[in-house]
Amino acid sequence: MNAITTTMPLTVRMQKSPFWGRSHAAGAKAYLVYNNTLIATGFTTAEDEYHHLKSAVQVWDVGCERQIEIVGPDAAKLVQMSTPRDLARMKDDQCFYIPTVDGEGCMTNDPVLVKVDEDRFWVSISDSDQILFYKGVAAALRLDVVVRDPMVFPLAIQGPRADDLASHLWGDGVRDLKFFRHMRVDVNGQPMLLARSGFSAQGGFELYFDGLTGGDLLWDQLFEAGRSMDVRAGIPSQSGRIEAGMLSFLSDITADMTPFEAGLDKMCEMSRDVGCLGWDALRAS
Amino acid sequence: MNAITTTMPLTVRMQKSPFWGRSHAAGAKAYLVYNNTLIATGFTTAEDEYHHLKSAVQVWDVGCERQIEIVGPDAAKLVQMSTPRDLARMKDDQCFYIPTVDGEGCMTNDPVLVKVDEDRFWVSISDSDQILFYKGVAAALRLDVVVRDPMVFPLAIQGPRADDLASHLWGDGVRDLKFFRHMRVDVNGQPMLLARSGFSAQGGFELYFDGLTGGDLLWDQLFEAGRSMDVRAGIPSQSGRIEAGMLSFLSDITADMTPFEAGLDKMCEMSRDVGCLGWDALRAS
Repeated sequence: MNAITTTMPLTVRMQKSPFWGRSHAAGAKAYLVYNNTLIATGFTTAEDEYHHLKSAVQVWDVGCERQIEIVGPDAAKLVQMSTPRDLARMKDDQCFYIPTVDGEGCMTNDPVLVKVDEDRFWVSISDSDQILFYKGVAAALRLDVVVRDPMVFPLAIQGPRADDLASHLWGDGVRDLKFFRHMRVDVNGQPMLLARSGFSAQGGFELYFDGLTGGDLLWDQLFEAGRSMDVRAGIPSQSGRIEAGMLSFLSDITADMTPFEAGLDKMCEMSRDVGCLGWDALRAS
Repeated sequence: MNAITTTMPLTVRMQKSPFWGRSHAAGAKAYLVYNNTLIATGFTTAEDEYHHLKSAVQVWDVGCERQIEIVGPDAAKLVQMSTPRDLARMKDDQCFYIPTVDGEGCMTNDPVLVKVDEDRFWVSISDSDQILFYKGVAAALRLDVVVRDPMVFPLAIQGPRADDLASHLWGDGVRDLKFFRHMRVDVNGQPMLLARSGFSAQGGFELYFDGLTGGDLLWDQLFEAGRSMDVRAGIPSQSGRIEAGMLSFLSDITADMTPFEAGLDKMCEMSRDVGCLGWDALRAS
């Protein structure tokens, strides 16, 4: 946590995930607002949390990674317009980290794109209203898509015991889930999407929790099942993610950078135009 | 200020206006983040500030009202695409409060549009990344415009003595400035735009301060000149603005509302299509 802090009133402008109450009760000491949603910045000390994450398992309320749902016949086309990464070979159960760019080739976000179905994507965003870019393009070109906030809130399970904890709730099948692939799991009667992903070097899962109710129950189930694994509430470790080379939009990546300047060359298909609106600008840069 | 508060670390994610240092030193007790920029939420008590605003003059660091600059031959067309308000008769020195909508006719922001020149607009935004909507439309239709953040930070001078204070710095010409019109004033050698506007019933001015340097000097000049007028640092009064019927995006207005549902019927030209991308949806709603 930073040395310099201020006081922030909690207002109706700030959304809370379905896990906020439990995470707050677990001892969250301070908050940031990210995508208009509260995210805790720490529970004990940064050092303690860093070391605990390397040895046990943590549950993170990262509901601030809000989703944009893009669905319809033009969904794939619209998403491709926002990124130079080639989405053609993306499997139906795959997640892609994508730089998104404007018409000048400058970064607008760096989301994880989740292919939920053939014509249905979730764009799991970092901290900018990327939904307005998609709405602008869709309206201008009268694309056959719906662009909406599906009210889906990621909950991360991270650390070396993540497989043990997740398999306790959803069976040993989760152990076979490959990196950046997803599967459906049953969360107290409701099918939800579980991906092997997360903002740590230790890895684990992100559950795309669907809706605003039932968060307390799931949280309690995870903490009951994880008692012997020393499960704790956490948040992404700044030291850990920097050590792992994971970038943070608005910190490491700013809106005046191209993906190349952000070090994301490998995510850009530059051998041909894949349909990105920033293609001409990127090629010229 | 709300009864429930938390602690917030100050990070590089949060921008500070050129007036932040002076405003903070004047005793800002807490902050919100608005358009990724810090805004104070109070200095003394809400009641004290409310009454003071009715009798004297306050200087507000509202640099969080960030600007989108849209410039070029297609600038007017692009802005019109975002709003059902008819912009055709807007004068070169005029400001318009405009509801902005997506292709479904739902609110994306409620900015003050400032016509800086024939082909140059500033969109003075409430709390959403409206710039991404314009970037999306501009890229999709290959419009001949530049869409950028001009790094202009409003400073509000509000209250019954606002004319006295502003005229002390910029001459008696400011007294003749009409509501939602703007003029150029000389700010320590640099021409800047001064508008009669602001988020209070008492009224006054908003200076569109250009750039990141020189804020301390101007602040000190205002407080020196305003000493006999009981000038104080302030921020928009929640009680005052609600009393005056002024809406706040993300509080009173949410992204699922049409302008009609937000009570902004009068700002919508519905007798004909003025070029708003949400026209069909608004007409059908």
